Amino acid sequence: MTARPSIFVLGGDGFCGWPTALHLSNQGYNVTIVDNLSRRRIDVELGTQSLTPIADMQTRLRAWKDVTGKVIQFENIDIANDHEALLTLLMQYKPESIVHFAEQRAAPYSMKGPSQKRYTVDNNIQATHNLLVAVVEAGLETHIVHLGTMGVYGYDTAEASLPEGYLTIGIPTDDGGMHKRDILYPTSPGSVYHLTKSMDQLLFQFYAKNDRLRITDLHQGIVWGTQTSETRLDERLINRFDYDGDYGTVLNRFLVQAAIGYPLSVYGTGGQTRAFIHIEDTVHCVELAVKHPPAAGARVQIRNQIAECHRVRDLAEIVGEITGAEIAQLENPRLEMAENELRASNESFVELGFEPILLKDGILNETIEICQAYRHRCDINTIPSTSEWVTRRGDALQLTEDSPVR
Amino acid sequence: MTARPSIFVLGGDGFCGWPTALHLSNQGYNVTIVDNLSRRRIDVELGTQSLTPIADMQTRLRAWKDVTGKVIQFENIDIANDHEALLTLLMQYKPESIVHFAEQRAAPYSMKGPSQKRYTVDNNIQATHNLLVAVVEAGLETHIVHLGTMGVYGYDTAEASLPEGYLTIGIPTDDGGMHKRDILYPTSPGSVYHLTKSMDQLLFQFYAKNDRLRITDLHQGIVWGTQTSETRLDERLINRFDYDGDYGTVLNRFLVQAAIGYPLSVYGTGGQTRAFIHIEDTVHCVELAVKHPPAAGARVQIRNQIAECHRVRDLAEIVGEITGAEIAQLENPRLEMAENELRASNESFVELGFEPILLKDGILNETIEICQAYRHRCDINTIPSTSEWVTRRGDALQLTEDSPVR
Repeated sequence: MTARPSIFVLGGDGFCGWPTALHLSNQGYNVTIVDNLSRRRIDVELGTQSLTPIADMQTRLRAWKDVTGKVIQFENIDIANDHEALLTLLMQYKPESIVHFAEQRAAPYSMKGPSQKRYTVDNNIQATHNLLVAVVEAGLETHIVHLGTMGVYGYDTAEASLPEGYLTIGIPTDDGGMHKRDILYPTSPGSVYHLTKSMDQLLFQFYAKNDRLRITDLHQGIVWGTQTSETRLDERLINRFDYDGDYGTVLNRFLVQAAIGYPLSVYGTGGQTRAFIHIEDTVHCVELAVKHPPAAGARVQIRNQIAECHRVRDLAEIVGEITGAEIAQLENPRLEMAENELRASNESFVELGFEPILLKDGILNETIEICQAYRHRCDINTIPSTSEWVTRRGDALQLTEDSPVR
Repeated sequence: MTARPSIFVLGGDGFCGWPTALHLSNQGYNVTIVDNLSRRRIDVELGTQSLTPIADMQTRLRAWKDVTGKVIQFENIDIANDHEALLTLLMQYKPESIVHFAEQRAAPYSMKGPSQKRYTVDNNIQATHNLLVAVVEAGLETHIVHLGTMGVYGYDTAEASLPEGYLTIGIPTDDGGMHKRDILYPTSPGSVYHLTKSMDQLLFQFYAKNDRLRITDLHQGIVWGTQTSETRLDERLINRFDYDGDYGTVLNRFLVQAAIGYPLSVYGTGGQTRAFIHIEDTVHCVELAVKHPPAAGARVQIRNQIAECHRVRDLAEIVGEITGAEIAQLENPRLEMAENELRASNESFVELGFEPILLKDGILNETIEICQAYRHRCDINTIPSTSEWVTRRGDALQLTEDSPVR
């Protein structure tokens, strides 16, 4: 019997982290969840909670052992601020891979006010940088798989399909020629949260080059769905379902609004096109990424972790058709273009065998059932987004194609 | 009589910050220095000190008042960690401009070990981000002038002159056309220090776009020289002169080595081309930048703050010719190409009337006199750089033109 490969899931208590930890455990990895439970603390701060009744970590892990016989370790460590504890843990387990979800991940929360802006930058940048420094310090060959976002590119994606992370450009040379060069695809983040993921890319680029760290950066779309085949095994394993104005992603908010007979809130014209992926696909893609690391010395492997692209208003219409809910157009608090196109490649996952679950596959119904089952737990007051992107100056801001920086 | 415009100099106790504060005070600005004296603390940590006997801040400011009758305020604030104090000060003075030097600025120090890497990222990113958040929070129209570095581009500057911050590229569109776009010139930082300046650029881009902050980013070359017309007025105003392996810039190290009869230490072949500027020009360029802010809503104004480019070995030869010193070739601890070209534009300052001081102008002699005068204070043990860029793995790393990420 060979030893099971050790893997850390940083942020393993969160919406993507928890089902990923279960899936990797189920696949035979020796999983250690590292989390400071900050997501639950922010629920308390915001006066919100998951629509689904998520169990505490101890109960979750006991349930997982009851159901599968498998053990997942849990370490309550703030990796952004407790470097020694992280380093000690790395030396102890020498993990083959680390999946890094341990960042504040809500754009509206990151724009709520000065302290949330600062928390998001300080927490996310320090968490990522501490991890990179610790892996170098521990002398490990660990493959780091980081959850990034398609959102780093902002809305500036009108005419060309987004490639997977890199763009070949020509730089005019002084002798009249052209120097070809691969660069990180230019970013234009639309919130402080997205900004931190764009800054993370520079951290990864440096440590891959200078210290030959093996890093995969997953540029994920907006996740929909709630349960995976593992979280469905026992109610104590249920995944979190956020529907509040800060952490609820657009489709989740529509579904819970429909379940309680509330109009679907579309900000602006709903003409923003976004990339989507089902939570079940998230955990499968992370597993694929873990299994296919880049070589030491290679550039960061960037993969677009997406299934399909939709306009927000089209999503509202789909949900409206299934549920009979009405649609309400609200003023858009975000500084973004009213309408945008988005096309993006997910070739590198398709090449590894990824067969995306699509909205039309009907799995939407499963989530509607979740919303129906737990609608008594819903607090409608938390649904609207109250973050103002721009808190100062009277002049109305509207980005256009001609804006000087896009 | 009109009120003197208020200006903050963050990091005003440092090598560039101090003479800048004096110059702006001399030009009629109401200067407030904000500094936590971290540079002096690091001297203690490293067991080094300035070759020149710099006075403490209280003595410096008393001397300035004695000599000129002008008052400079001093606030001992750690802007990276004391957001409230920074915000309170902004509300009190409502400065028209802020010159931001308050970052850890030595590449070798930033690569010394895990704690220096983390300090450099945490301090520099939090300082810059706190400043941006505080200016938004205070509702000010303040123009922020930040000291960046030409070093963000790394060595990847062989064939084309570096423009001032931006590059127009063509992105192939799905319909076979080409979409033109101005992007931040791609960076390839060679140390954690340079990495933070590259990350700063993303912070500036976001806050200029989202909050219409007016920001100038100065991409400065390596500074040489010690005194300015203001620091020369009284010995108590003397500027710091670093010659140690961490903080001493290349020309300063050569000059002090020559003064004490030590061979000039050239790392590698000395074929690295770098951009240079005299400290007197630094303070004049900062003043020009302060006086020419970008409009609110405009993109970040990036200016290359440089006078000329030289190869390191050519500098050594110039110093050797003047002083008779020998040249010693040492192994290069940095991960960089052995030889590189560098050409860069400084057009935007030239258009504002900048007439650079060049090495051949003979001002080098003034610095040689400084080194002669204070050579009794020199500790030769601190001259070699002891930071290893890559602390792990046996395989020798050597970047080449063919390296996957450059």
